[in-house]
Amino acid sequence: MTAASLAVRAKAASRALNAAPTAVKNAVLERVASALTSMATASPILAANRVDVAAAVAAGLADAMVDRLRLDGQRLAALQRAVREVAGLDDPVGAISALKQRASGITVGRMQVPLGVILMIYESRPNVTIDAAVLAIKAGNAVILRGGKEALNTNRALAAIVADALKAEGLPEDGAIFVDDVAHDTLYALLGCVGTIDLAIPRGGPALIRAVNEHARVPVIQHYQGICHVYVHEQADLEMAERIVENGKVQRPGVCNATECVVVDNGIAERFLPAMAERLRASDVELVGCPRATAIVPDMVAATNADFDTEFLALKLAVKVVDGFDDALAFIAAHGSRHTEAIVTDNHPVAMRFLREVDASCVLVNASTRFNDGGSLGLGAELGISTTKLHAYGPMGLAELCTKKFVVLGAGEVRS
Amino acid sequence: MTAASLAVRAKAASRALNAAPTAVKNAVLERVASALTSMATASPILAANRVDVAAAVAAGLADAMVDRLRLDGQRLAALQRAVREVAGLDDPVGAISALKQRASGITVGRMQVPLGVILMIYESRPNVTIDAAVLAIKAGNAVILRGGKEALNTNRALAAIVADALKAEGLPEDGAIFVDDVAHDTLYALLGCVGTIDLAIPRGGPALIRAVNEHARVPVIQHYQGICHVYVHEQADLEMAERIVENGKVQRPGVCNATECVVVDNGIAERFLPAMAERLRASDVELVGCPRATAIVPDMVAATNADFDTEFLALKLAVKVVDGFDDALAFIAAHGSRHTEAIVTDNHPVAMRFLREVDASCVLVNASTRFNDGGSLGLGAELGISTTKLHAYGPMGLAELCTKKFVVLGAGEVRS
Repeated sequence: MTAASLAVRAKAASRALNAAPTAVKNAVLERVASALTSMATASPILAANRVDVAAAVAAGLADAMVDRLRLDGQRLAALQRAVREVAGLDDPVGAISALKQRASGITVGRMQVPLGVILMIYESRPNVTIDAAVLAIKAGNAVILRGGKEALNTNRALAAIVADALKAEGLPEDGAIFVDDVAHDTLYALLGCVGTIDLAIPRGGPALIRAVNEHARVPVIQHYQGICHVYVHEQADLEMAERIVENGKVQRPGVCNATECVVVDNGIAERFLPAMAERLRASDVELVGCPRATAIVPDMVAATNADFDTEFLALKLAVKVVDGFDDALAFIAAHGSRHTEAIVTDNHPVAMRFLREVDASCVLVNASTRFNDGGSLGLGAELGISTTKLHAYGPMGLAELCTKKFVVLGAGEVRS
Repeated sequence: MTAASLAVRAKAASRALNAAPTAVKNAVLERVASALTSMATASPILAANRVDVAAAVAAGLADAMVDRLRLDGQRLAALQRAVREVAGLDDPVGAISALKQRASGITVGRMQVPLGVILMIYESRPNVTIDAAVLAIKAGNAVILRGGKEALNTNRALAAIVADALKAEGLPEDGAIFVDDVAHDTLYALLGCVGTIDLAIPRGGPALIRAVNEHARVPVIQHYQGICHVYVHEQADLEMAERIVENGKVQRPGVCNATECVVVDNGIAERFLPAMAERLRASDVELVGCPRATAIVPDMVAATNADFDTEFLALKLAVKVVDGFDDALAFIAAHGSRHTEAIVTDNHPVAMRFLREVDASCVLVNASTRFNDGGSLGLGAELGISTTKLHAYGPMGLAELCTKKFVVLGAGEVRS
């Protein structure tokens, strides 16, 4: 099977998925949910996962990597709940907004419709196979699933229950195609399928994102790293700032919306930094700082240049002292990854300027960077967080897996 | 000046444009508008244009091409009106929609913000230099203008008045950078400026679109050709169908939303086609048809396969007879260019299925394909019509030159 013919199959299936009634799509999702915990279908998934985990251990993969790979009854039950949550969401397809009559007589609106065929490219977490497939299908899309090679057996087993569920409800199995061939050249060929694949979504680290950018001819929305800052303005409530920094760094350090760097105004650095350092010490956070920061907190290690451009994903925090608001904006523009940026301030004009001028998918005033996800922001289930500015900037939920076309209702009108 | 350094300059300027107040941006536009017809600034533009036109004539370019290139006092006045129309539109930047309080206590909304740096790539019409620059600037973006080599002198003169206007209002001249070097390699280098150029918009024919797709690493929204169909359903008002086909083909045949192919149900072909042919004959439209169509209208020429995949942009119309609705949908899916598709029918379920299932930026029921433009659909001035499904599908106005980021207003909230 060539990449091109696979994409053509997905395109053909996408027409049926676009036209599928809500009840049929929800029935597919319920079949997937049931299969995740029924003995007959869950056993092969867990058996396949044991093969992948054993191979990962034998290959000496880091414990954190092996843990991401592992499935068990509890994780399958959590996945089942996630699928049922998507089934419970409103169908985004077919909604018509902004319907208005024009002077010419025509009525114009915008109809939300599926994107078509989505190529999902991900790394070692096998749950993405299910999350991506059910979100894409609920939004009326066909999906091509290309996961990491470490999870190949698990992903194949999970994708099979999606294809079976589609078939059982009378929809084409090609609505969810699993790419069994994890060769790079196959991925690159898929990324060249202009006209059949409507969107590629790479979700992963720098090497994956770079490879996709290099080879893609189809549109790409990347879910890339978060180098997220908390800027403590000189008019901040410093106790609030401590809580927001602590939450952003400590609550779940391994995720993309965790805080990686705190930026502090020079005027309050001497009051704020020692208190912050003491609070974070209780959680074993390693602090690395610029020269002015280390001068204030002596046991802080000197940061390297690379530290200010690194997503630590660990209990490590970079600290930068700046000369006021404009300096802070410039620093964030230079080192942020357009993911999530927060300010702590009591000053209204400063807060409004920060909201408008900082370029990131989510900009927060007096709140933790950890709030940048679909659930917290009110989108419901999401596929990931886009750091591409086009189409979807931030969490991608069902609406972001659709596009809007213009619809015109006429009664014989022509242009004059 | 390398492409990369030019993009870096534009990126730096984009921060000032993002922050620019509405009144300042409108003042820039008014300066541009005035310059287009004031003697001191219009004379050099017209002189530069005479050089381009003379070179085009000497090179033997087709009359239609030379006409696209030509500027005169009347065309500059039209351009001036277009600039003032954009100045009169609401500022899209900073609008916050869907502001809602969440259970966590945070208030969440989406703020419309500029995309950043837009690379506009176009062909011989020099007015695009002004149209693209003023729309991009009004939406708070920096723009890099790369026009066709035939219009180089004209474009340089037009771009200079934009840069002068920015400077006179205290904004960076780099907010509108004209690419004087029309070498392909320079364009390809610009298309590789990931991280500085946020969007490339190619507007032109197949060769330009292909070259951009081949070389772009930055996101692309293409403004490509329209192979637009009118499908005459068996339950159509046939007189209405005649009017809609005639308007779509004859009113302005050289534009992308002109009708290129009529698709007719077999059951009514014998009644409809002779009447349609007679009506179009009055406007000297050349008809080419499938075998069933030519059997009904004897003086219709047999269509080649290529005719059904060609944007004629001329008084030429392809005719295809199909076996009902599903056959029509399949034909349009195979031969349409996702631009504009219309149906003529009195049947409500058929109309609704057509709206939902046909994949095009604008789908119309009982109205002319000519309505797919920003003015007719209610967007105001537009940059062109996107046939890319992401971000903007259809006419791109000011809102489509922006993105939406999430903004969060808190009072010290953290994730639990």
